[in-house]
Amino acid sequence: MNEFHVWLEEKLLELNLTKTMNVPDGFSRLSFTEEEKEAHQQFKNIAVELELTTYQDVIGNQWALWEVSPDEKIIAMGSHLDTVYGGGGYDGTAGILAAFGVIKLMKREGFVPKKNLAVICFVSEESARFAVSTVGSKAVIGKLNKEEMAKLQDKDGIYLKDAMESFGVKWDLIDQAEVPEEKIERFLELHIEQGTILEDAGAQIGIVSGIACPVRLKVQVKGHANHTGTTPMNERKDAFAAIAPLITFVREEALKWNETSDVPLVATVSTVQLKPNAMNVIPEEVELGIDIRSVDDELKRTFAREVTAFCSDIERKEHVMIKVETLVDNDSVMLDDRVHENLLEASRTKGYKTLSMNSGAGHDVMNMALKWPAGLIFIPCRDGLSHHPKEHAEIADVEKGIRTMVYYLKNEAGE
Amino acid sequence: MNEFHVWLEEKLLELNLTKTMNVPDGFSRLSFTEEEKEAHQQFKNIAVELELTTYQDVIGNQWALWEVSPDEKIIAMGSHLDTVYGGGGYDGTAGILAAFGVIKLMKREGFVPKKNLAVICFVSEESARFAVSTVGSKAVIGKLNKEEMAKLQDKDGIYLKDAMESFGVKWDLIDQAEVPEEKIERFLELHIEQGTILEDAGAQIGIVSGIACPVRLKVQVKGHANHTGTTPMNERKDAFAAIAPLITFVREEALKWNETSDVPLVATVSTVQLKPNAMNVIPEEVELGIDIRSVDDELKRTFAREVTAFCSDIERKEHVMIKVETLVDNDSVMLDDRVHENLLEASRTKGYKTLSMNSGAGHDVMNMALKWPAGLIFIPCRDGLSHHPKEHAEIADVEKGIRTMVYYLKNEAGE
Repeated sequence: MNEFHVWLEEKLLELNLTKTMNVPDGFSRLSFTEEEKEAHQQFKNIAVELELTTYQDVIGNQWALWEVSPDEKIIAMGSHLDTVYGGGGYDGTAGILAAFGVIKLMKREGFVPKKNLAVICFVSEESARFAVSTVGSKAVIGKLNKEEMAKLQDKDGIYLKDAMESFGVKWDLIDQAEVPEEKIERFLELHIEQGTILEDAGAQIGIVSGIACPVRLKVQVKGHANHTGTTPMNERKDAFAAIAPLITFVREEALKWNETSDVPLVATVSTVQLKPNAMNVIPEEVELGIDIRSVDDELKRTFAREVTAFCSDIERKEHVMIKVETLVDNDSVMLDDRVHENLLEASRTKGYKTLSMNSGAGHDVMNMALKWPAGLIFIPCRDGLSHHPKEHAEIADVEKGIRTMVYYLKNEAGE
Repeated sequence: MNEFHVWLEEKLLELNLTKTMNVPDGFSRLSFTEEEKEAHQQFKNIAVELELTTYQDVIGNQWALWEVSPDEKIIAMGSHLDTVYGGGGYDGTAGILAAFGVIKLMKREGFVPKKNLAVICFVSEESARFAVSTVGSKAVIGKLNKEEMAKLQDKDGIYLKDAMESFGVKWDLIDQAEVPEEKIERFLELHIEQGTILEDAGAQIGIVSGIACPVRLKVQVKGHANHTGTTPMNERKDAFAAIAPLITFVREEALKWNETSDVPLVATVSTVQLKPNAMNVIPEEVELGIDIRSVDDELKRTFAREVTAFCSDIERKEHVMIKVETLVDNDSVMLDDRVHENLLEASRTKGYKTLSMNSGAGHDVMNMALKWPAGLIFIPCRDGLSHHPKEHAEIADVEKGIRTMVYYLKNEAGE
């Protein structure tokens, strides 16, 4: 095993604040927690080791800068270090590791770029805690919705605003995290695929052309609480029993659509809250969270309309009140053609089996691409497993991603 | 409105720690909380006002004693003051109020009983917080399952054991709460019906002959967590989508059974826990709580077996793991025939429209009846609504219950 490979494995552990990647309960570094902060400290340590200038912006993103000239633009790479509850150690982290790996290799080879290079560790990419994703990269492109964010709470009732403050972020200043267009030239992110397309094709590198953004629905059902032992079955307004068929409908419909459409669509009822959620009380209120994705924006929106229609039917049949709210509905993001082409060429020149593909998951690059030419490099992860303790990617594949980026950057940022 | 009526309304407010019964969020005096303790303090205040001797036993039950002779046995009345989350001000409280009302009337009429009379305020009757019910009355009959109780936590992870300690109960002593059989002669409880049988029949008093005890099942489903955006629909093990049909099945089957059987059965999926319950992660684990009741024990157990069989089918079809655990399975409790007859006679002699009926809900009397002859008096509650902020009973009906008990006691405890 070469020295660089060993260095990568070492830094992977450091970034995950662990001595082994085999952690049964997985990693839980939720947005704006002490755990995310500790990971950011590791980011800074590695940056210092690589003799990069580090600073934290007003939203809490960590920047590590290799500045060759203050007049040059920055070619930035980056990802995130926060995770879901019991997530894996590669989602986001592999991207940070790869970005540092690129710098490490270049410096080892004595290569001096013509452009400034930066590694960005975006804060709070995962929506697991506050139901809002990619907070750090949204701030960098000036697309924060402060008004909406002010309302968000985690499941313990802690407001995002307060979590940010205790993380060291000044709520009143977060709008100033926006980076002017002229400061950055382009952006690259490496990420694990979180699917099985590369694995199934026996490919080592995927170069992404488009990212499917979700439609997210909140379905609120209001029935009538009553005693489970004394209320006859035919005199109930059980909110949970009323909405249960929707859970089945969402899956069965999505399966059906994939048989006919050639663009895939995925739909999941992924969250539920019951009130009062007590053994001897008939459920009065249910809240379901539904996540719908496809690179075909029309497809996913039609599906969302079908969910709403299905809810209206239930409302009529069951005499419960149902409110369907759209939490998120963003267009899919198409990445820069030239970057896409050049990354494909770089990877293939390095002799890796390479696919051009789409992404079913959003990443920080999705925001960066709205302001700067951007590219996304996928590497395989075992069984497509992600957001799970068993999430795993091969360091050898991370290294292939790094060498692809180094080749690309030497052309773009070299003499 | 007579003076006694006014006194009852006043005491109802005091026991509910409120200035008005119209509280939009209802009452939340959960087991072994400060709120329950404050209600117990009100109990003591009223007892003192009625010149009764009060003491707290080692499980936390409050006793108010009218002792005419230390050699005489006790005829006890009582109920509880704890509630579910956002419950009503009559479930339990009406029974305490009525018991005090009986003493108040007797004393006002200068009646001196031959037997000692007691009002017992049982601690922690509701299972809403710790999924165990009637803790106080179980302790009095010596039927606590300490080993099981030691495992119980509320939804914030607080152990029942610790909640009891901070309530002032010494965990090591709780077995000593058992009351020897010879000390008590019989027990009476008044309770709101929590159903619509009395209301529908236009009756004012129900005398209960049998109590339906629940079968409670915990259904645990284990699927596979994965990213909602990147995992194709046909490669998922979504625990929530897999088990959803059970929620529908439980209701539809129960409805079907009631068409054919003349003994009613009710079944409810009343609780759910999802893991990780995050918008972008496919549900890996689901836990459902199911409450099944009928006075026909065979009927409810057959239904429980059908639920288990349905789960086995799902397990096979969906390739998820399902574990069905029986949390509670008690026989229905039949109340003392003679007490039942005499209470019916008392109520009818007072000229109230009276029904002999069964109870779909368990109450403290259910435990007391296992050790002593016991009776349960139901009064109507509006729309059968209970465990709900809008729960309501008429003070006039509480008064009818009181006068029924006074008539009964004068015969039983008089000269």
